[in-house]
Amino acid sequence: MSHTTSPETLSCELEAVLAAIHPVDRAQAPRGQAHLDNLTKPRGSLGRLEDLALQLFLIQGGQPPCADPMRIYTVAGDHGVNEEGVSLFPQEVTRQMVLNFLRGGAGINVLAATAGAQLYVVDAGSCGGGYDDHPALIQAKIAPGTANLAKGPAMTREQCLRALLLGVSLADSALADGVRVLGTGDMGISNTTPSTALYCAFLGLDPVAVTGPGTGLDAEGMARKAAVIRRGLAANRQAVESGEPLAVLAALGGLEIATLAGLILGGARNRQMVCVDGFISTAAYVAAWKLCPAVADYCVISHASAEPGHGAVVKALGLWPLLDLGFRLGEGTGAACAMYLVRSAADMYTRMATFADAGVAGAGE
Amino acid sequence: MSHTTSPETLSCELEAVLAAIHPVDRAQAPRGQAHLDNLTKPRGSLGRLEDLALQLFLIQGGQPPCADPMRIYTVAGDHGVNEEGVSLFPQEVTRQMVLNFLRGGAGINVLAATAGAQLYVVDAGSCGGGYDDHPALIQAKIAPGTANLAKGPAMTREQCLRALLLGVSLADSALADGVRVLGTGDMGISNTTPSTALYCAFLGLDPVAVTGPGTGLDAEGMARKAAVIRRGLAANRQAVESGEPLAVLAALGGLEIATLAGLILGGARNRQMVCVDGFISTAAYVAAWKLCPAVADYCVISHASAEPGHGAVVKALGLWPLLDLGFRLGEGTGAACAMYLVRSAADMYTRMATFADAGVAGAGE
Repeated sequence: MSHTTSPETLSCELEAVLAAIHPVDRAQAPRGQAHLDNLTKPRGSLGRLEDLALQLFLIQGGQPPCADPMRIYTVAGDHGVNEEGVSLFPQEVTRQMVLNFLRGGAGINVLAATAGAQLYVVDAGSCGGGYDDHPALIQAKIAPGTANLAKGPAMTREQCLRALLLGVSLADSALADGVRVLGTGDMGISNTTPSTALYCAFLGLDPVAVTGPGTGLDAEGMARKAAVIRRGLAANRQAVESGEPLAVLAALGGLEIATLAGLILGGARNRQMVCVDGFISTAAYVAAWKLCPAVADYCVISHASAEPGHGAVVKALGLWPLLDLGFRLGEGTGAACAMYLVRSAADMYTRMATFADAGVAGAGE
Repeated sequence: MSHTTSPETLSCELEAVLAAIHPVDRAQAPRGQAHLDNLTKPRGSLGRLEDLALQLFLIQGGQPPCADPMRIYTVAGDHGVNEEGVSLFPQEVTRQMVLNFLRGGAGINVLAATAGAQLYVVDAGSCGGGYDDHPALIQAKIAPGTANLAKGPAMTREQCLRALLLGVSLADSALADGVRVLGTGDMGISNTTPSTALYCAFLGLDPVAVTGPGTGLDAEGMARKAAVIRRGLAANRQAVESGEPLAVLAALGGLEIATLAGLILGGARNRQMVCVDGFISTAAYVAAWKLCPAVADYCVISHASAEPGHGAVVKALGLWPLLDLGFRLGEGTGAACAMYLVRSAADMYTRMATFADAGVAGAGE
């Protein structure tokens, strides 16, 4: 993909990715379940770890599941809607946090390292120019921030396609390096606003019901933010009413959000498990799922965000986050914690003894 | 402590341990909180990881928290009440599982290794004789199983004291090896029955409300189990009505449960954090907390057990389990997963950059 590629070609490339995503083969499930049931524990007694192990087994085509290597991409983008006063933090913080990631001082640096996951930082759309080269930085700026979604489309269709395909290319790079499990991370001041707008448009939720404090707005700030989202939905009515996932994502999303949606699509195409982080990443998940429902087989919602709208969203989606630790940081921090559990699940499947191996009697014997 | 020590001397030893347990010094909390608030994240945005970091900071006397080394003790004991038909698994499985632990094939072997925690297996009271020596095995059998609590006291006061002091000695051995965080684990066929009986006696809960399927009883089995517990409470009425923690624990507990209660007491005395595993370990926690309420400052309830009574118990205690993964295995498997989060919390506290260090603007600046 080069910057001279036409929008039509980009659209064809995306269609090819979507066409190559297939549901997992559930015919393999009984074999995986039988193995889990033969391990030296009462059936089902490791709960969601067993679910994760079976999911990974199916994703990997019925092989004993393998979680490593694992890689988190933390993708940065800025948002024109920031000018509406929807965040307590100044927009410059996106760039400052990218630099903090590269120096290793942010939450995601620490939690990724503790989880044993690789971390790459991706500039998909932060304001300002480029960054000094860094081995953990992928410079792929599509635009220096989006337009203000309260007044019209945040992105052009072309920008949105480029971001999606950037995300796919990240999954492909990871695949080339043998990565089995991906984590999504975001950095973008004001990005709970486009995420909330996407939830409203994609899931028919009300802005007041889904709008939360983000990094710390008070009640007045939340009311202002909900009003901004309502204006954004009105200003982009044509896209919203079309229901076309790409049009909705372009109108209301963000460059980092679209990139993460592409990462999810690419991961599913590549048969990688994707640990979806919190509020922002789940918006990317919803966009990816609208583009291709089969991504659901490849994804885990890592944690329940403390951002209050997240609960309504996962309920609407019928999903059950793995962790509930009160996180509301983003960056991929919830994904990092979930990835540790994915490794635990794979290790459980592959390293525990069976009843027969261990000479342990089963239930009722 | 030798097996010739008199019960009076054992009682004095326990009193000395209890007298040496002190609440953490909360006067240090503002300093720890200020550090957390200066890290490059919105305040409180790492939720329970911040709570864990502050708790460990206070446990360790206001030092930057350190989680490693971590060690799980999985303690085995058998139960005379097994003859009442309260489990689907035959009693021999306790011993078979001890051997499985020593061969490395059980759930706790895998999850402890993945979490980077040391694992020791302790025979406090399994049926049968001793085991072949093994570097990960501590042979400290107090009796080959308890008496049937449905008919009278499960343990003598002396056995219970010996088990408590065994647990204290385990915490001390860990301290001598520099261990900062302990995990509790249990193995004992039928041990949801004594645990449920302890909850009823200590917290005034009804047997029917707290009795669950354990490793897989059906409704009829659960009704029988609740009736057995009701008989046990009646058969041990004097101990139950005394409200004396040691008398209640001796009457209704188990050798592994009392040992784990001692491990919790010893951990608190030694200023070690204790990750309390699920249904059985929480019963040990309640006994320890009744003996010395200050243990609460040192403990984390690792996970919400899938055993249904656990929810009522933690609610009655005002506690909030860290994880909810549908585990009902015991062995310390939930503690292992929680210990990983404790390490993440300590790393977050000690390795993240502050706003000033990173040149990142704060909220509202």
